[in-house]
This record gives sequence, structure tokens and C-alpha cells, in this order.
Amino acid sequence: MGKGRIEAFSDGVIAIIITIMVLELHAPHETTLAALVPEIPIFLSYVLSFIFVGIYWNNHHHLFHAVKSVSGPVLWANLFLLFWLSLIPFVTAWMGENHLEAVPVALYGADLLMCALAYSVLLHFLLKHEGAASTLALAIGRDLKGYGSLVIYLAGIASAFVNVYLAIALYLLVSVIWFVPDRRIEKRIG
Amino acid sequence: MGKGRIEAFSDGVIAIIITIMVLELHAPHETTLAALVPEIPIFLSYVLSFIFVGIYWNNHHHLFHAVKSVSGPVLWANLFLLFWLSLIPFVTAWMGENHLEAVPVALYGADLLMCALAYSVLLHFLLKHEGAASTLALAIGRDLKGYGSLVIYLAGIASAFVNVYLAIALYLLVSVIWFVPDRRIEKRIG
Amino acid sequence: MGKGRIEAFSDGVIAIIITIMVLELHAPHETTLAALVPEIPIFLSYVLSFIFVGIYWNNHHHLFHAVKSVSGPVLWANLFLLFWLSLIPFVTAWMGENHLEAVPVALYGADLLMCALAYSVLLHFLLKHEGAASTLALAIGRDLKGYGSLVIYLAGIASAFVNVYLAIALYLLVSVIWFVPDRRIEKRIG
Amino acid sequence: MGKGRIEAFSDGVIAIIITIMVLELHAPHETTLAALVPEIPIFLSYVLSFIFVGIYWNNHHHLFHAVKSVSGPVLWANLFLLFWLSLIPFVTAWMGENHLEAVPVALYGADLLMCALAYSVLLHFLLKHEGAASTLALAIGRDLKGYGSLVIYLAGIASAFVNVYLAIALYLLVSVIWFVPDRRIEKRIG
Repeated sequence: MGKGRIEAFSDGVIAIIITIMVLELHAPHETTLAALVPEIPIFLSYVLSFIFVGIYWNNHHHLFHAVKSVSGPVLWANLFLLFWLSLIPFVTAWMGENHLEAVPVALYGADLLMCALAYSVLLHFLLKHEGAASTLALAIGRDLKGYGSLVIYLAGIASAFVNVYLAIALYLLVSVIWFVPDRRIEKRIG
Repeated sequence: MGKGRIEAFSDGVIAIIITIMVLELHAPHETTLAALVPEIPIFLSYVLSFIFVGIYWNNHHHLFHAVKSVSGPVLWANLFLLFWLSLIPFVTAWMGENHLEAVPVALYGADLLMCALAYSVLLHFLLKHEGAASTLALAIGRDLKGYGSLVIYLAGIASAFVNVYLAIALYLLVSVIWFVPDRRIEKRIG
Repeated sequence: MGKGRIEAFSDGVIAIIITIMVLELHAPHETTLAALVPEIPIFLSYVLSFIFVGIYWNNHHHLFHAVKSVSGPVLWANLFLLFWLSLIPFVTAWMGENHLEAVPVALYGADLLMCALAYSVLLHFLLKHEGAASTLALAIGRDLKGYGSLVIYLAGIASAFVNVYLAIALYLLVSVIWFVPDRRIEKRIG
Repeated sequence: MGKGRIEAFSDGVIAIIITIMVLELHAPHETTLAALVPEIPIFLSYVLSFIFVGIYWNNHHHLFHAVKSVSGPVLWANLFLLFWLSLIPFVTAWMGENHLEAVPVALYGADLLMCALAYSVLLHFLLKHEGAASTLALAIGRDLKGYGSLVIYLAGIASAFVNVYLAIALYLLVSVIWFVPDRRIEKRIG
């Protein structure tokens, strides 16, 4: 099967996820700059999630750029990823409205962890479909980035109960790793 | 007429349906894990509906993959399916917020029944347009899956008034049947 | 310029318009069938608007199917149409929540009138871009359907202050005219 | 990398931004024309933002029409633009619900300024990717339109604290400049 429609559907879902988060920003009733202050943590959570979802879109884009076709399991693995991504607006809202308390920050990390896990599952089924000698397989190698991300997220979730800023720093560390989408793919495809 | 735009429009509508359901999950004001407990039935309803809508997308994807062009009646039959799919967020919210009471569970099943019926109508018009000797016609055969689903949904709706878990089990039974999209189509197209 | 992106953007906007209307249907707190009764006028308004927006999508689909490329004015005329379509959720909500009172029903018709007018403007710029000898120009002819629709909508708006059901009957009369998208286009393109 | 998916994703995000703004228009409880009066400033803000977002879409459309492929930095620059565009519904709501008070009008302009800046950044990375001899580079030249817009927006933000109508007039002045998308691009591509 062609990959056109799975890309289009994923683009649609990710576009909605990244955009509806802004609905959490409620226009204050007063019209002073001070009235915007309570919106700041919600705004920062939005920025954070926009970056994370943007990274997923960029990497999803690169990933499917490297494959030729998709299989039934790939369709479901992709939906599994979209499911966990779709929860980001919820965990973002909970974290943002509560000034970064421990449990919401940990739940936020748990959702990011599930997204990362789902991304690995999607990669697994794509590699299985494309074969060990495919461009994708050669580009990904042993997927150290994927496994490393899972470990850092776990550390982040645990540290949320000690210091939420440490937790968020660890989440951001993962985003730094993925900010530049797989150059391994770009190099091999051009 | 080409099928590109009907696919794109359906992708858009289904992407929105599957994503706006998450807006029903409201961030609780407290920040304990206990505060999430009331969200659990809403979350599970969301999971259930995500699976159902995901199945429709997968099968819609396979169905249009097998056709070459579309006719006027196909455009309307497709809109008829999208209409019943668009009600899923509403019936999901009613079921989820009310801890699976009989009437909401039955209405949820009634909407799934209408979706299944609309899918059969869409299939009917596609087969009429493609002709009896088409790949699609040979792949679908007598559409036992379609008719069987309608019967199971009817049984599920009726059983909602006896035991809601039995009803949901029957709805899930249909999803198991459709979880793997028509291999009949995949086999013939490759 | 190619027409691919204007089609994709219009599909996106129309998909959102047709789907967010369902957010007006609020899950009632009680779980009896009787609790759904107050939702019925909102539901019927949704059905009505779903049909109208569906008709616009179908005709938009046919219209752009018949053109080869687009011009700058066409981009803006298309946005003008999308603007009036985007107000349909608002006028639908006002009409549905108020059991079909005169002013909301008239405003609903006024928005449909503006959509029809915008569609004629779009058609005008497409014809200007394609030329008098184009397939589209030959298919549309003197655009009796377009002008007739404007007249019937005006009659419908006026009659809303006498009898709202007559007004809605007249709005539906227009939808009957457009339900089957321009066969004139289909005949000439195949 | 091809440009198809970045166009599709941008179309999706912009389509959602332009459409969810209408959710700020709340159906009044009364059914007189007078009940619509408080909605008028919200409606006018919506019209204003619809025009601005429409202009961005048109120019985005022209911009990517002129490029052949995209690079990693272009993907991120595009997301940076989409981020500031996604805040338009929020600043529109704040401005519209408060009858054009100074601070919300200035913030509205500040977001437009950031959008314009992000557009220039996107253009910069596209030019870097395409090369100085590309169609795009020749069409854009010294980007006087881009720099001029930034200056006018700054003047508009400052004047919001003197006279909000002057501020909005200046914002509209920028939109007049961009209303007709780069003819420079159209001329060279045809």
C-alpha cells in the first residue's frame, strides 16, 4: 500500500493536536499586562508541548520519507502513536494550570514516554516491513536514540517527585537529541 | 472523477473526530493521582472510540485503495458515513460521563450500528460504480462481515438494558472482526 | 498556479466546519431517553447544516475538478466563501438553541445567502481565469442555478418573520437544486 | 526532501487556526437582533484575523510554490511561523472581548509582528536552501516588503497606547501591502 494517506491522516491529527492546545489559553477579563501573568505557566506549557509535537511531526516526516510503502501493522502502530500524542493537550493543560506540581509533571513525562515507546514500535514495524537491508534499517542502526530517550524519560518521571524543574530539564534533553531529525536518514536519501 | 479529494476530505473529518474527543478529558483542579480517578471512565470511553474510529479509518483507507474513481452517489454515501462518525464524540461523552448506564451505552451502540450501515451503503454504491467484475467486488464477495456486524450491534444494543458490559463486549467483538482490514483487498492488490 | 493546495486547504477548513458543529451537542447529565429531548432541535439544526456544508463541499469538489489552474483573485474569492461557511456553526447554534425563532432563522438564511453569493463570485473569477471557451464556461452557461438560489434564499429570509417552517422549507428547496452537483460539469468531463 | 508534506501540514494548521476563531462567537440566549450587538466587536476582530491569516496562507502558498525542496532548518522555521500564527485566536479573543482596549490591541500587534518576523526567518532559510541564483531569490530581491512590514507593525504597537484605531489602521496597512501575494513570484513562474 502507498504511504500517501497515512501521511495525510497523521498530518491532520498532529495539526489538530498542536493547534487545539491553544484553546487552553483563555482571554483574561481584564486588559492589563498584569492580567496575563496567570497565563504564563499555561503559555510556557504550550510552548513546551508545541516543541515536542513539532519534533514528532518532523521525525515522522523524515521516517516516512525513508519508506516506500506501509503494511497493516504499520497503520495500527501509527494510530497507537497518534493516540498517545492526542493525550498531550490533556497532560499539558493539567501541568500548566497547576504551576508545575509533581504529579502532573510526572504524568506529562509518562505521556511523552508512551509517545517515545509508540514511536519505537512504529519504527519496529516499519523496519520489519522494509527489511534489514533497506535504507531505513541502515540509517537507524541499533536505534540508540530511541532507547536512550526512554531511559531519560524514566529518569525525568522519577525526578518529578524530587524537583519538577529537573524533570522538565530531562524532558528537554530528549527534545535536544531529536531536534535535528535523523541526519542518518537525510544522509542516505539526500 | 478522481478519488484524491474524497480521501483527503475524509481524512480531515476523521482526524478531527478522533482528536476532539480528547477535549472531553478535563484537567482536574487538584494535582493528586486520586483526582484522575473520575476521569477514568471518560478515558476508557475515549480509548474505545479511538479504536472504533481508527478501525473505520483503516478500512476506509483499504476500501478506497481498491477503487479507481468515484461517482456522485459515492460522494453522498461517504458524507452519510462521516455524519454518523461525527456523532461518536457526542455518544462517547454521554457514555463516559455517566459510568456506563444502560441508555447511553445503547445509544453508543446505535451510533456504531448507523456507522456500520452507512459503511455498507458506501460499499454498495462503490460496487455499483466499479462493477461486478472489479477487484473490489471479487474481494468483498457477499459481504458477510458487513451483515454480521449489523446483527452483533443489534444484539449489543438490546443487551445494554440487561448488562452494559455484555453490550460493550459485543461492540468490541465487531471491532475484532474489522481490526485487520480486509485482507481480501490486500491479497488482490498487494 | 496549480490547484492542489487550494483544494487541500478548502478541504481542511470545510472538514473542520462540518465537524465542530457537533460540539454544540452537549451530553446531558441524566441518562434517560427523555434527557435527549432538549437536544433534538440542536440535532436537527446540525443535520440541516451538515447537509448544506456537504452540498458546498460536493459542488466545490466538482467546480475545481473542472478547472486547470487558479489565479490570485480566485484564492481570495475562495477565502471569501470559506469565511461565510465558517459562520455556519455560529448561526446553526443560535437557531438550534432557540427552537427556531424568527430572527435566528432569518440570520441562518442570511449566512446561506452570503455563502451562495460568495460561491457565485468564486465562479465568476474562475470563469474569468479559464476563459469563455473553457469546459467550465460551457458547463455553467448563464448560471440559472446560482441566480435562482439567491432569489429563493431572499424569499426564505423574508418568510422567516411570517412562518419559520416556510423559511426552512425554502432553504431546503435550494439544497434540493444543488444536491446533485452540476451534472453539466460531469457530462463534459466524464 | 519534497515539499508536499510541509505544505499539507501547514494547510492543516492554518485551516484549524482560521476556523476555531469562530468558536469565540457565542450564540446569545436571546433571539433579537439587539442580542447580537455585543457580538459585533468579537465579529469584527474575527474578520480582521481571518484576513490576516488568509493573507499568510496566500503568501505561504506562493512562497512554497516557488521552491523545489525543503531542508531541516526550513521545517523548523515553518513551525516557528505556525506557532505565532496559532496564538492569533488567543490575541483575537482578548482584543474582541474587550472593545479594543490599548494593551490587547498592542498584544495583537505584537503577535502579528512575531508572525512577520517568523515569515522573514522562513524566507531567509528558504533562500539559503535554494541559493542566490534561484527563482525565489530573484523574485524577492532585498525583501523591502518584509522589512517595511516590521517597521509598520512596531509603529502600530506603539500607537495602540495613543489611539487604538490608529494602531489597527497601521496593522491593516500591512495587510494591504501583502493582500496581493508576491507578484514578483507569479511573474517569474507564471
